[in-house]
Amino acid sequence: MCPVARSLDIIGDRWSLLILRDAFDGLTRFKEFQENLGIAKNILTDRLKKLSLDGILESVPVSDRSAYQQYRLTAKGQALFPVIVTLRQWGETQLFEAGEKHSVLVDRQNGQFIQKIEVKSKQNQSLSYLDSIVRKVED
Amino acid sequence: MCPVARSLDIIGDRWSLLILRDAFDGLTRFKEFQENLGIAKNILTDRLKKLSLDGILESVPVSDRSAYQQYRLTAKGQALFPVIVTLRQWGETQLFEAGEKHSVLVDRQNGQFIQKIEVKSKQNQSLSYLDSIVRKVED
Repeated sequence: MCPVARSLDIIGDRWSLLILRDAFDGLTRFKEFQENLGIAKNILTDRLKKLSLDGILESVPVSDRSAYQQYRLTAKGQALFPVIVTLRQWGETQLFEAGEKHSVLVDRQNGQFIQKIEVKSKQNQSLSYLDSIVRKVED
Repeated sequence: MCPVARSLDIIGDRWSLLILRDAFDGLTRFKEFQENLGIAKNILTDRLKKLSLDGILESVPVSDRSAYQQYRLTAKGQALFPVIVTLRQWGETQLFEAGEKHSVLVDRQNGQFIQKIEVKSKQNQSLSYLDSIVRKVED
């Protein structure tokens, strides 16, 4: 079984990935996701349920006395941060015209841009896809 | 416009991402994709067409005398390599039991594992999503 395929079985869906992007941006409430994404309620309900069942989000009551839930990233969900950042960086470099404005991801401490993510060897050399190879295993 | 959303408009689809994974593994022919993915021909045709229109794959004749096409990653498509690698690494670390076998991505030159991808600051510090913030721009 390929790890890429297994990941995509869980998050290989535009809405799920957009919900995760919003979760990384700090959104937690159903209404917040709904308003930010302009997503139909039934689809949002479905995706939040799926992401929760898969252990990527966890829902907890907003407060002791509230019936409202908030959705928070689990450790497994937080580990998806590099996936969202590579999607962002590909978009930034490949899908915007020069001078066209877009949001940017910056270091909270000093406001500087974060590093461009690259695939690197153990020796810290940048690797293109031609420099690497998938070693299959017997099932 | 958010760069993540713009990326997902183009590749936010399980089949498209699996086709790209296969392209990075060296597959080029319709039949190869079809057999490896077990995908319906009409869906594969649709996704290859979409990826070509979006400038991610380019189709060229297999040889001068052939009616068969091969699909190759453009520079824009090759730039998606870190996206596929982060999906792979998340799967490897989060979706497999200890001891459960899976394919691995290695350095072609020496067979060593590639580095775990992390989000890093300009100062080369690892950043979690809490250490970074999306700075919005006015549209």
